[in-house]
Amino acid sequence: MTISRLPITGFSNPAVKAARSLREKKHRKREARFLAEGLRLLTEAREAGIVPEALWVGQHRDPHPLIDALERAVSDCGGVIYETTADILSKISGKDNPQTVLGVFSDLPTTLDRLDRTRSGIWLVAQAMRDPGNLGTMLRTCDAVGAGGLILVDQCVDPFSVEAVRASMGAVFTVPLAQADWGEFLGWLRAGPGQLVGTSLNTTHDYRGAAYASPSFLLIGNEAQGLPSNYEAHCDLLVKIPMLGKADSLNAAVAGAVMAYEVLAQQG
Amino acid sequence: MTISRLPITGFSNPAVKAARSLREKKHRKREARFLAEGLRLLTEAREAGIVPEALWVGQHRDPHPLIDALERAVSDCGGVIYETTADILSKISGKDNPQTVLGVFSDLPTTLDRLDRTRSGIWLVAQAMRDPGNLGTMLRTCDAVGAGGLILVDQCVDPFSVEAVRASMGAVFTVPLAQADWGEFLGWLRAGPGQLVGTSLNTTHDYRGAAYASPSFLLIGNEAQGLPSNYEAHCDLLVKIPMLGKADSLNAAVAGAVMAYEVLAQQG
Repeated sequence: MTISRLPITGFSNPAVKAARSLREKKHRKREARFLAEGLRLLTEAREAGIVPEALWVGQHRDPHPLIDALERAVSDCGGVIYETTADILSKISGKDNPQTVLGVFSDLPTTLDRLDRTRSGIWLVAQAMRDPGNLGTMLRTCDAVGAGGLILVDQCVDPFSVEAVRASMGAVFTVPLAQADWGEFLGWLRAGPGQLVGTSLNTTHDYRGAAYASPSFLLIGNEAQGLPSNYEAHCDLLVKIPMLGKADSLNAAVAGAVMAYEVLAQQG
Repeated sequence: MTISRLPITGFSNPAVKAARSLREKKHRKREARFLAEGLRLLTEAREAGIVPEALWVGQHRDPHPLIDALERAVSDCGGVIYETTADILSKISGKDNPQTVLGVFSDLPTTLDRLDRTRSGIWLVAQAMRDPGNLGTMLRTCDAVGAGGLILVDQCVDPFSVEAVRASMGAVFTVPLAQADWGEFLGWLRAGPGQLVGTSLNTTHDYRGAAYASPSFLLIGNEAQGLPSNYEAHCDLLVKIPMLGKADSLNAAVAGAVMAYEVLAQQG
């Protein structure tokens, strides 16, 4: 089967503008689509059964079997392949040295009811997380520890921003993700088994060797404010990560990872 | 004692241009100075005995005892205080909502010979680290675990970039920092006690419960390539952090923190 590619060389082509606009949140929301860049990320997606609606490839790309596989997958699913210049790839990605492949994906579902809490003993829950790098890094950590997924509570940064997708190193395609407000999350959580674990300065309970249940939901608060105290009150267990220096908190993604690896070690 | 403040309202004032230029690495190198933003960071610096050469304060700032303390410290040390508009603070910081205080600091020393390896049982060593957020986050982790310092090996991102300073949350002022190439570092390391620990995929040795000596130097490789294999060969101990998912690595700052907290737990 031959692969058909649509050549695009004009910056003013509407497809260029549409793809480029996905770097901005308001356009992502309106279009319910997002951008992912690079052969590695797009291959992770493909292997997870997620294929872009539109694939952009550079005119002067070196041949690569993984690009061939991507093109076949997009073609088989009825997607479109645009072949374009490095300058246009730069324009879409906003980078001087763009990747030679970009994909436009439909938003992935992020409802709580899709999550299967029996899938893993570890879940990460980020509350009001603001930094896309932290969000992507937490997805990557979820993948590494075999977590059930990442639950975004309250107003978090967009998990489908270019920065978050990039920082996830592809985990955005492989780790289940949900978005909910605090009330919804609590309702869902309490409808089944699960221990809510908060990291807090307001406890003497060391995170190391605390009694984690399975599944544990590890709640990490906002980068600047930490967890609201009334959220702490809903936790089944509050633990403290030692802070021996001047500062009173870790980077949020680091705190999530230190907690997740402790629970993983316990759960074996 | 009265505090004297120099009013600056013109964008073209050379002091504005000089401060603003410090957002770029080439100017930082030439001037051997760097920028730090915000009352929190500047207060961390002051409490560590590090005072900016120049302090920029907003005309319409709210009174704050920590700003008063900063102004007194700068004045006592013969530094200059510029009082300026929010627009000029925006121009210097490159942000729409600038902090109301900014400081211009002389570069901090980063030679290996300043480090005292008896100071702590944990040290972080980052090799060819490229991301300023990761570098700042590792400094913050060093503070949290009471590490002796962060050693940057080979060509790393500038630790005095605005992004790295910000991500460190002030730890750039409190955590000893050194820069060296691999050969220099090894020479320094082997001139005294110290176990070099590498994280690697090429071992079955789990990081958890491995026999860490004191001091341990935890070596974290470049974000994209990991550690060069000939560097691994120099390690006294190679350990593996479990990776249960699709990806074969963690974020570098996360890997450093997971390792550092394991060593901290062992060393008590």
